[in-house]
Amino acid sequence: MRTTTGWQAEDGTAGMAGTAGTAVAPLRRVPLHRRDLRPDDLAVRVDYCGVCHTDLHSVRSRAAGGDPYPGGPHPLVPGHEFTGVVTETGPEVTGLRVGDPVAVGNIVDSCGACAMCRAGQENFCHAFPTLTYGGTDRVDGTATLGGYSREYVVRERFAHALPAGLDPAAAAPLLCAGVTVWEPLRALGAGPGTRVAVAGLGGLGHLAVKLAVALGADTTVITRSPDKAGDARRLGAHGVVVSTDPEQMAAARDRFDIVVDTISAPHDLGPYLRLVALDGTLSHVGHLGPVTVETLDLLIGRKKLSSAGSGGCGSTADMLAFCAEHRVTADIELLPSARVNEALERLGRNDVRYRFVLDMSDLD
Amino acid sequence: MRTTTGWQAEDGTAGMAGTAGTAVAPLRRVPLHRRDLRPDDLAVRVDYCGVCHTDLHSVRSRAAGGDPYPGGPHPLVPGHEFTGVVTETGPEVTGLRVGDPVAVGNIVDSCGACAMCRAGQENFCHAFPTLTYGGTDRVDGTATLGGYSREYVVRERFAHALPAGLDPAAAAPLLCAGVTVWEPLRALGAGPGTRVAVAGLGGLGHLAVKLAVALGADTTVITRSPDKAGDARRLGAHGVVVSTDPEQMAAARDRFDIVVDTISAPHDLGPYLRLVALDGTLSHVGHLGPVTVETLDLLIGRKKLSSAGSGGCGSTADMLAFCAEHRVTADIELLPSARVNEALERLGRNDVRYRFVLDMSDLD
Repeated sequence: MRTTTGWQAEDGTAGMAGTAGTAVAPLRRVPLHRRDLRPDDLAVRVDYCGVCHTDLHSVRSRAAGGDPYPGGPHPLVPGHEFTGVVTETGPEVTGLRVGDPVAVGNIVDSCGACAMCRAGQENFCHAFPTLTYGGTDRVDGTATLGGYSREYVVRERFAHALPAGLDPAAAAPLLCAGVTVWEPLRALGAGPGTRVAVAGLGGLGHLAVKLAVALGADTTVITRSPDKAGDARRLGAHGVVVSTDPEQMAAARDRFDIVVDTISAPHDLGPYLRLVALDGTLSHVGHLGPVTVETLDLLIGRKKLSSAGSGGCGSTADMLAFCAEHRVTADIELLPSARVNEALERLGRNDVRYRFVLDMSDLD
Repeated sequence: MRTTTGWQAEDGTAGMAGTAGTAVAPLRRVPLHRRDLRPDDLAVRVDYCGVCHTDLHSVRSRAAGGDPYPGGPHPLVPGHEFTGVVTETGPEVTGLRVGDPVAVGNIVDSCGACAMCRAGQENFCHAFPTLTYGGTDRVDGTATLGGYSREYVVRERFAHALPAGLDPAAAAPLLCAGVTVWEPLRALGAGPGTRVAVAGLGGLGHLAVKLAVALGADTTVITRSPDKAGDARRLGAHGVVVSTDPEQMAAARDRFDIVVDTISAPHDLGPYLRLVALDGTLSHVGHLGPVTVETLDLLIGRKKLSSAGSGGCGSTADMLAFCAEHRVTADIELLPSARVNEALERLGRNDVRYRFVLDMSDLD
């Protein structure tokens, strides 16, 4: 057993400020155990970990008494988009060495045998992939603890070499937010000659804009806030549509081959489907849960609704290579990890442009 | 004004046996007026008219007191998939002559100017296409009356030449049911090397099977009824999955590039989405109204949900040519039009393999 330090959510409701609104439970700095390395494991010194909406959701759920583990209560240590350096390797590790910069996303194992794993889409594993935190290790059955910590032990296959030229702090959010929008953009063929709209300009949205622009697509931001127009242009967007302006929305009808909807709150998809071109697709990536659409909003224009989340090992590596070539990273606000609770609280108020990243060096 | 004869639904609830269950209101044989021919109009002697679920729905809605016309009550004469012969032409008609066999589907006009009309998808006209019945004529504002009648007057552009070799009775259902499944099969690329599943084996479904097979796709029928397996094979299907058998459904997971869901009752799409392959599409064509899906059912496998309904002028002509070449028509039960109420009543019980067609010659 190895020992490290991390940030762990309080259990139960004691000391919680409630789950509605913006207040979240304080995470506490605690010692954590990591498994001894298996033959195909790496130990990673975690340097930078992004703060994802899922982290906030998990902390709030825990504060409300929820426990995602079927086996009973386990510690919750969030964090599933991080970068760091390999510090130790198991004897069967062949592709990475001590000192290599690496990146880990939100899955750390999968069955390896199902049709999705064989297709390189471990994120869709039929037996469900092992989540980086809140998952159950496939070998020893322990709960996985996330990247809000100074060390992580991971199977080599799920640690991605971080290409040279990518700032490791600004690259951390690529591993969840980035690949979540990369996969649909690639699967739907975003590139020269296609028109892409990105609805919502947050952690996912700003990366969708950068990636769509770098892929060569004509890229438009759909936002409720006219004051985000400047930011949208700075990120590379070629156009902006203000969603609260009916005239602008009407003028954009049927205009986009791909609409990447990154809005994190439940919302009516109708107005966004009406922006999709004939045979185009709305990819709804901002939130999970049931979604209701009017069949006519799909029928008129033969439009498609899709979703996406995280990435397979192959496409994660492809995305990192693409980002290194095109100098795409997240716009981040870097905080010492000791300010994690402030980051979560501000994320709950959408007070971030566009992603918090925690610097873990203060855990030494 | 021209005079003809047709089958008209009773207004209001008088004499109705209720809207739930299978009973429907009796249609009555009545004299009808048709407009005098405009320069680009044809008069068509209606020989055969298919009986669509929409007809049943409209008659039931009318029986329940519903009235789709904003301008107040108007007669309801159903029927929007019919074949016949041109009997008279306006002076600007250039492509069709008296005596030509023609077919008319469920739209008879559109704005002609919007992006969808310009793309040849008049069925998605932004100003809404004029429906063959229950619509409002764009010129004189009168209510359109459908094909359950001996004559129809229609703009030339919306009358399709019926290719030689297609039986006019069995071809009638191609004009609504056929093109409704043709458009998604074509748009989604059904053909050699693709795997298509058709859920539901009714009017739409049996044509989806025939068209998918003729397009060269590996085609499977998904049905609740094991006793439909023989029919499915006879229609050309290469495989059958019984949806009430969990083992068969599990074995078919992620198997189909395209699932055409023709089930006419509201139902959970989850089990059918799970049959869709990575980056594949479920086309939900069997019923209108709101539909709810779990985002995860789309996310896992990056699947798409779409819909479709009726067809543009171009694709309708393409479909008719394809059907003539591949000898595809509907499997029909042909009844004299005087038995229309029996047809609707049996359709309400799904007691039809696979489409009723009314022979209008008894209206002379």
